[in-house]
Amino acid sequence: MIETPYLLFLGDAPDQLSAKVGQGIRDWRPENAVGQFRLPGCGADLRLTDMTLEEARDAGAKTLVIGVANRGGTISETWKDVLREAMDLGFDLAAGLHSLLRDEPDLKQKAQETGRTLHDVRIPTVKYPIANGEKRRGKRCLAVGTDCSVGKMYTALAMDAEMRERGMKSSFRATGQTGILITGEGVPLDAVIADFMAGSVEWLSPDNDDDHWDMIEGQGSLFHASYSGVTMALVHGGQPDALVLCHEPTRTHMRGLPSYALPSLHELRDVALTLARVVNPAVQVTGISVNTQHMAEDEARAYLANLEAEMALPATDPYRFGAAKLVDRLAEL
Amino acid sequence: MIETPYLLFLGDAPDQLSAKVGQGIRDWRPENAVGQFRLPGCGADLRLTDMTLEEARDAGAKTLVIGVANRGGTISETWKDVLREAMDLGFDLAAGLHSLLRDEPDLKQKAQETGRTLHDVRIPTVKYPIANGEKRRGKRCLAVGTDCSVGKMYTALAMDAEMRERGMKSSFRATGQTGILITGEGVPLDAVIADFMAGSVEWLSPDNDDDHWDMIEGQGSLFHASYSGVTMALVHGGQPDALVLCHEPTRTHMRGLPSYALPSLHELRDVALTLARVVNPAVQVTGISVNTQHMAEDEARAYLANLEAEMALPATDPYRFGAAKLVDRLAEL
Repeated sequence: MIETPYLLFLGDAPDQLSAKVGQGIRDWRPENAVGQFRLPGCGADLRLTDMTLEEARDAGAKTLVIGVANRGGTISETWKDVLREAMDLGFDLAAGLHSLLRDEPDLKQKAQETGRTLHDVRIPTVKYPIANGEKRRGKRCLAVGTDCSVGKMYTALAMDAEMRERGMKSSFRATGQTGILITGEGVPLDAVIADFMAGSVEWLSPDNDDDHWDMIEGQGSLFHASYSGVTMALVHGGQPDALVLCHEPTRTHMRGLPSYALPSLHELRDVALTLARVVNPAVQVTGISVNTQHMAEDEARAYLANLEAEMALPATDPYRFGAAKLVDRLAEL
Repeated sequence: MIETPYLLFLGDAPDQLSAKVGQGIRDWRPENAVGQFRLPGCGADLRLTDMTLEEARDAGAKTLVIGVANRGGTISETWKDVLREAMDLGFDLAAGLHSLLRDEPDLKQKAQETGRTLHDVRIPTVKYPIANGEKRRGKRCLAVGTDCSVGKMYTALAMDAEMRERGMKSSFRATGQTGILITGEGVPLDAVIADFMAGSVEWLSPDNDDDHWDMIEGQGSLFHASYSGVTMALVHGGQPDALVLCHEPTRTHMRGLPSYALPSLHELRDVALTLARVVNPAVQVTGISVNTQHMAEDEARAYLANLEAEMALPATDPYRFGAAKLVDRLAEL
């Protein structure tokens, strides 16, 4: 568990896209971000107050979160002075980069000297159990995609936000590094040992109130040859009551697999339902979330209307048109 | 890769069952076992020549394999004198126990002194790639089960043996510790990091001759809530041309999951085919392997005949009635 609130470190991010981890925190847990810290030449701006380390500390920030990814996912030498000074001032550090904070000798030494914690959220810190498949109390929703990176995390976060606004009980359950940095906790599922994957998801989503929803962050795709095992563990460990199908209509092949076509939403629905029924015979597909960023608005609206008629399910782009339709259906369950 | 041939260490095994790793090596790769080593009170006998360490060394043995599992999977103190002496005489050690050879300080020290290798086959030693899903040359067969521990490894080994006898090109590809000890190499799939599972299976089963079969050892079950992700990675990383369905008809619930019923063979066939077609549209279910050990012979024969009529597939118990039927179908592909 990472101590909140954060100061978001954007370093020398060349553009807005390279600060997308910081943007995710800003968008979904603004209460976790007291401000941003930028180095000269930073091309990203989260529209948070620019703060010095001292100002952020005085504003209550506990952790400096690296909200930027540079090429290669390394820890830049130009960041190091700030990172070390932050530990001197009492900040923990957190990052989800490919390179680990703990593998930088100078940062590790400083953390030991100052008694601060280095959070590398790609690395599991918990000894997860083997899944036991036992029915848990409370309700669970899982987003499953026709492909990787079609908006599963965004969908779960948008539904979680909408549910909280309505006063429903909801928790976003992070399973990837960005999600973990947004919420301060979760399971880095793609780094868990195979035998413990489903168990880690059970651990992440324990018994809860009967009217509480866990919005579990999806990973990969049941149809993605590289990562389908991770998705399978989410379906069986997550024990979903509701599945939301996620899709990006303009994609021409599976991400990273040029010779693989995407499955249809019908195929995804049928396979995901069949597999999820193993752990919860009452599971339903409750809606469709479409990433329409590459479509004009009228085109997107027509596509969604057509999809609703064809699949007999509510369909929306939660980023563009809100998540209300998807939450309405959960509220009825 | 573990150096062969082996001397099989049975220690103080209380009974035959506790020596099942040794039995597997004896049954499937007898050419890898020059003899057995037993301590006083050993209740197991693999019907191999009892040898001293010196005799086994003179007979060419390179590795002392721990072919026994005691309660808890620990390394017994009563074994230690033999294990250390074996290293002095030039043997490597290999084990698939829950406790690791490398975690025993005295064994580790002796290995360093003598320059010998400690093989803990539960731990991956290779940095596996992310799966790329690209079509590989050669043919692949994967056994998938209605449950865990229904005979998938045995089925693949029996088919591999039958194919070699017929002069067909076949390799058993081990994915679990017993299989790895039997063949001296493989992937301990349940200990691989989630993101690399399917890639490790691709690595295990590379391009080969067009008429060569990889008989890939199955793990878990697509219907087992604890381990289904591992099975999924085998289906997509393994890129099977042929699937053999494995079943144990008298089991009343999924192994370790008392509230879960087994799927039918029809359900297994449909789900496994649907998922395997993602990576190989031409995949076929080619046969059924039934573990009939808890059925009388006439009962077993009637069950298999009925299954063949119902599923329109060859069905046999390869342990009891041979694997010929299953191999006939592969030979036709």
